[in-house]
Amino acid sequence: MKAKIHVTLKPGVLDPQGKAVGHALEALGFDGLGEVRQGKYIEIDLAGNDAEEAKTQVDAMCRQLLANMVIENYEIEIEA
Amino acid sequence: MKAKIHVTLKPGVLDPQGKAVGHALEALGFDGLGEVRQGKYIEIDLAGNDAEEAKTQVDAMCRQLLANMVIENYEIEIEA
Repeated sequence: MKAKIHVTLKPGVLDPQGKAVGHALEALGFDGLGEVRQGKYIEIDLAGNDAEEAKTQVDAMCRQLLANMVIENYEIEIEA
Repeated sequence: MKAKIHVTLKPGVLDPQGKAVGHALEALGFDGLGEVRQGKYIEIDLAGNDAEEAKTQVDAMCRQLLANMVIENYEIEIEA
Protein backbone atom coordinates (compact mmCIF):
# COMPACT_ATOMS: atom_id res chain seq x y z
CA MET A 1 0.00 0.00 0.00
CA LYS A 2 1.34 3.39 -0.96
CA ALA A 3 0.66 6.84 0.49
CA LYS A 4 1.06 9.91 -1.67
CA ILE A 5 1.34 13.13 0.29
CA HIS A 6 1.29 16.72 -0.94
CA VAL A 7 2.55 19.37 1.44
CA THR A 8 1.85 22.90 0.25
CA LEU A 9 2.19 26.34 1.79
CA LYS A 10 -1.08 27.83 3.01
CA PRO A 11 -2.51 30.59 0.82
CA GLY A 12 -1.05 33.92 1.84
CA VAL A 13 2.21 32.47 3.14
CA LEU A 14 5.16 33.92 1.21
CA ASP A 15 6.90 31.40 -1.04
CA PRO A 16 10.38 32.70 -1.95
CA GLN A 17 11.30 29.39 -3.58
CA GLY A 18 8.27 29.57 -5.86
CA LYS A 19 9.06 33.23 -6.64
CA ALA A 20 12.63 32.29 -7.58
CA VAL A 21 11.35 29.57 -9.92
CA GLY A 22 8.94 32.07 -11.50
CA HIS A 23 11.71 34.62 -12.08
CA ALA A 24 13.99 31.94 -13.54
CA LEU A 25 11.24 30.86 -15.95
CA GLU A 26 10.70 34.47 -17.04
CA ALA A 27 14.44 34.87 -17.55
CA LEU A 28 14.29 31.85 -19.85
CA GLY A 29 11.68 33.63 -21.95
CA PHE A 30 8.45 32.06 -20.71
CA ASP A 31 5.67 34.61 -20.41
CA GLY A 32 2.08 34.78 -19.26
CA LEU A 33 3.12 33.36 -15.90
CA GLY A 34 1.10 34.09 -12.80
CA GLU A 35 1.93 32.84 -9.35
CA VAL A 36 4.34 29.93 -8.99
CA ARG A 37 4.24 27.95 -5.76
CA GLN A 38 6.43 25.04 -4.78
CA GLY A 39 5.56 22.30 -2.34
CA LYS A 40 6.74 18.86 -1.37
CA TYR A 41 5.56 15.51 -2.67
CA ILE A 42 6.29 12.43 -0.58
CA GLU A 43 5.60 8.78 -1.38
CA ILE A 44 5.67 6.22 1.43
CA ASP A 45 5.37 2.45 1.06
CA LEU A 46 3.34 1.04 3.91
CA ALA A 47 2.78 -2.47 5.24
CA GLY A 48 -0.78 -3.63 5.89
CA ASN A 49 -3.93 -3.65 3.80
CA ASP A 50 -6.30 -1.42 5.74
CA ALA A 51 -6.62 1.88 3.85
CA GLU A 52 -8.48 3.56 6.71
CA GLU A 53 -5.77 2.64 9.22
CA ALA A 54 -3.05 3.68 6.78
CA LYS A 55 -4.67 7.08 6.36
CA THR A 56 -4.84 7.59 10.12
CA GLN A 57 -1.17 6.63 10.44
CA VAL A 58 -0.06 8.94 7.62
CA ASP A 59 -2.16 11.76 9.04
CA ALA A 60 -0.20 11.41 12.29
CA MET A 61 3.08 11.43 10.31
CA CYS A 62 2.07 14.67 8.62
CA ARG A 63 1.13 16.37 11.88
CA GLN A 64 4.25 15.21 13.72
CA LEU A 65 6.91 15.54 11.04
CA LEU A 66 6.07 16.08 7.40
CA ALA A 67 4.08 19.30 7.52
CA ASN A 68 4.47 22.45 9.57
CA MET A 69 0.82 22.96 10.50
CA VAL A 70 1.32 26.67 11.14
CA ILE A 71 2.17 27.49 7.53
CA GLU A 72 1.49 24.33 5.52
CA ASN A 73 -1.46 22.24 4.40
CA TYR A 74 -1.24 18.57 3.50
CA GLU A 75 -3.27 16.15 1.42
CA ILE A 76 -3.10 12.39 1.68
CA GLU A 77 -3.98 9.83 -0.98
CA ILE A 78 -3.81 6.12 -0.20
CA GLU A 79 -3.29 3.68 -3.07
CA ALA A 80 -3.77 -0.06 -2.72
CA MET B 1 -5.40 27.93 -16.09
CA LYS B 2 -3.23 26.08 -13.62
CA ALA B 3 -0.44 23.58 -14.18
CA LYS B 4 0.37 21.02 -11.49
CA ILE B 5 3.78 19.43 -11.86
CA HIS B 6 5.28 16.49 -10.03
CA VAL B 7 9.03 16.06 -10.27
CA THR B 8 10.25 12.74 -8.85
CA LEU B 9 13.56 10.92 -8.83
CA LYS B 10 13.79 8.09 -11.34
CA PRO B 11 13.56 4.59 -9.87
CA GLY B 12 17.00 3.41 -8.80
CA VAL B 13 18.34 6.90 -8.12
CA LEU B 14 19.38 7.22 -4.48
CA ASP B 15 17.16 9.52 -2.43
CA PRO B 16 18.99 10.57 0.76
CA GLN B 17 16.26 13.09 1.61
CA GLY B 18 13.60 10.37 1.46
CA LYS B 19 15.81 8.06 3.51
CA ALA B 20 16.24 10.76 6.16
CA VAL B 21 12.47 11.25 6.34
CA GLY B 22 12.00 7.48 6.68
CA HIS B 23 14.50 7.26 9.53
CA ALA B 24 12.92 10.24 11.28
CA LEU B 25 9.48 8.61 11.05
CA GLU B 26 10.88 5.36 12.50
CA ALA B 27 12.51 7.32 15.32
CA LEU B 28 9.07 8.77 16.09
CA GLY B 29 7.73 5.23 16.50
CA PHE B 30 6.03 4.64 13.14
CA ASP B 31 6.61 1.10 11.90
CA GLY B 32 5.81 -1.00 8.85
CA LEU B 33 7.46 1.62 6.66
CA GLY B 34 8.95 0.64 3.32
CA GLU B 35 10.67 3.02 0.97
CA VAL B 36 10.11 6.77 1.39
CA ARG B 37 10.81 9.01 -1.57
CA GLN B 38 10.55 12.76 -1.73
CA GLY B 39 9.91 14.83 -4.81
CA LYS B 40 8.84 18.33 -5.73
CA TYR B 41 5.36 19.62 -6.42
CA ILE B 42 5.02 22.86 -8.36
CA GLU B 43 1.88 24.83 -9.20
CA ILE B 44 2.02 27.47 -11.92
CA ASP B 45 -0.75 29.89 -12.86
CA LEU B 46 -0.81 30.39 -16.61
CA ALA B 47 -2.48 32.90 -18.89
CA GLY B 48 -4.43 31.65 -21.90
CA ASN B 49 -7.18 29.07 -22.34
CA ASP B 50 -5.61 26.49 -24.60
CA ALA B 51 -4.82 23.39 -22.52
CA GLU B 52 -2.80 21.79 -25.31
CA GLU B 53 -0.61 24.87 -25.74
CA ALA B 54 -0.23 25.20 -21.95
CA LYS B 55 0.94 21.60 -21.72
CA THR B 56 3.54 22.16 -24.45
CA GLN B 57 4.80 25.28 -22.67
CA VAL B 58 5.01 23.56 -19.28
CA ASP B 59 6.75 20.58 -20.86
CA ALA B 60 9.44 22.97 -22.12
CA MET B 61 9.71 24.52 -18.62
CA CYS B 62 10.27 21.08 -17.11
CA ARG B 63 12.96 20.17 -19.62
CA GLN B 64 14.76 23.50 -19.34
CA LEU B 65 14.53 24.23 -15.65
CA LEU B 66 12.23 22.32 -13.35
CA ALA B 67 13.47 18.76 -13.79
CA ASN B 68 16.94 17.30 -14.20
CA MET B 69 16.17 14.87 -16.99
CA VAL B 70 19.19 12.70 -16.13
CA ILE B 71 17.86 11.65 -12.74
CA GLU B 72 14.28 12.93 -12.55
CA ASN B 73 10.91 12.24 -14.14
CA TYR B 74 8.10 14.75 -14.34
CA GLU B 75 4.34 14.63 -14.74
CA ILE B 76 2.16 17.51 -15.86
CA GLU B 77 -1.53 18.04 -15.15
CA ILE B 78 -3.35 21.02 -16.64
CA GLU B 79 -6.45 22.32 -14.87
CA ALA B 80 -8.85 24.79 -16.43
